Amino acid sequence: METIFNHRSIRQYQDKPIDEKLLNKLLAAGTRASTTGNMQVYSIVVTKDAELKTRLWEAHFKQDMVKQAPVVLTFCADFNRFTKWCEMREANPGYDNFLSFFTAAIDALLAAQNVAIEAEHNGLGICYLGTTTYMADKIIDILELPKLVVPVTTLVVGYPAEQPPLTDRLPVEAIVHNETYRENTGAKIEEWFSPKEAMDFYRNFVKENGKETLAQVFTDVRYTGKDNRFFSQAFLKTIEKQGFMDN
Amino acid sequence: METIFNHRSIRQYQDKPIDEKLLNKLLAAGTRASTTGNMQVYSIVVTKDAELKTRLWEAHFKQDMVKQAPVVLTFCADFNRFTKWCEMREANPGYDNFLSFFTAAIDALLAAQNVAIEAEHNGLGICYLGTTTYMADKIIDILELPKLVVPVTTLVVGYPAEQPPLTDRLPVEAIVHNETYRENTGAKIEEWFSPKEAMDFYRNFVKENGKETLAQVFTDVRYTGKDNRFFSQAFLKTIEKQGFMDN
Repeated sequence: METIFNHRSIRQYQDKPIDEKLLNKLLAAGTRASTTGNMQVYSIVVTKDAELKTRLWEAHFKQDMVKQAPVVLTFCADFNRFTKWCEMREANPGYDNFLSFFTAAIDALLAAQNVAIEAEHNGLGICYLGTTTYMADKIIDILELPKLVVPVTTLVVGYPAEQPPLTDRLPVEAIVHNETYRENTGAKIEEWFSPKEAMDFYRNFVKENGKETLAQVFTDVRYTGKDNRFFSQAFLKTIEKQGFMDN
Repeated sequence: METIFNHRSIRQYQDKPIDEKLLNKLLAAGTRASTTGNMQVYSIVVTKDAELKTRLWEAHFKQDMVKQAPVVLTFCADFNRFTKWCEMREANPGYDNFLSFFTAAIDALLAAQNVAIEAEHNGLGICYLGTTTYMADKIIDILELPKLVVPVTTLVVGYPAEQPPLTDRLPVEAIVHNETYRENTGAKIEEWFSPKEAMDFYRNFVKENGKETLAQVFTDVRYTGKDNRFFSQAFLKTIEKQGFMDN
């Protein structure tokens, strides 16, 4: 459908609020997504307050769109509500483990993508914030998330103040495997990635970052092993702290 | 949009293949989803072969729709392709850790929801298989997934042979929190869950399972603590075996 094929992440927003009725429609669209056993083990925290948004902006590496967009939606894996219900119904819940966390994270992410598509379908722009998992502990603090609740992604939503071009993607063939996984051979990697590396946009990107190859911008600047290991430990510790590691 | 608000999971399929062009459109829709840093760190394994589907059916707790649906799509967190590219470009990849696994899982899940919506928009039905994480190790074996590739969800896709009603959902208010997380009080849990528990469908469900409350069906039959802990350990071991735990 057009909405899906026209998606672009929006990083500049108009200073214009989202009508309450429209916002509720986006959230309702989220709740129509598939959910494991119809348990709906996720929550969406809707933040509009300027002071709270400023605190979230700090947590999200000070990406300006967090302050600019009228609405920040934090999607959380959430077994808190379901566990409370079990406890009130003489049932003995066992959702304080990694599988339950991951199950709840899937629920939250499918709901997020529904909200994103519904937003774009209604003329709004969105951007996902990958910093959510890096800074989960800080976000838990800001949004006062209780035990068995962990933020897994964030959407900023608002009216676009930019019209970026479609982002390039690898050929579909690179992502898709027929029947079973086929090896990513050197020749195929060359075929899939070379056109990307040849684009002016990426050539400049490599230059600006003082690197020799585009891959080095990822490994040495944007997503370094050192950072990844640091945030891995932090995120695992947070998952445990929230009560999801009694395996 | 209509497609989102009309979603129902389909568990009975017609014996009718999906046209190749349409299938390619679904997969292309998947690749338009947001992806961390445009790294596209996921793969989709398309399985149609009857013998492979039978093996997947066994892995997925013998749910008949896996054999019935013409196409089974396994969505995988995948840093294998990206890592190979880095290695070919004098870059030193550091994606063998938990954060990278989770980042790649997010990519895979957003792509899956795009495929699901595009499928439904084109008159197809879908169902997610939560058994993917339970049986990840078996699926890795069947689909020959290499290091840095872990299956995180599966979609069966085909033409519906049933028209189930819309699934009930908790009121949107139960899922949504304004500004910060508000406590799930006993009174609110009562208000949100009681209408569900009063439905004939769930009353029968409780009776059929020989339980006293609906919550007990979840905790004692469908998603038990014992199973959750068992599959937590198995899944964590698989994530490690695939090379994602060098934190």
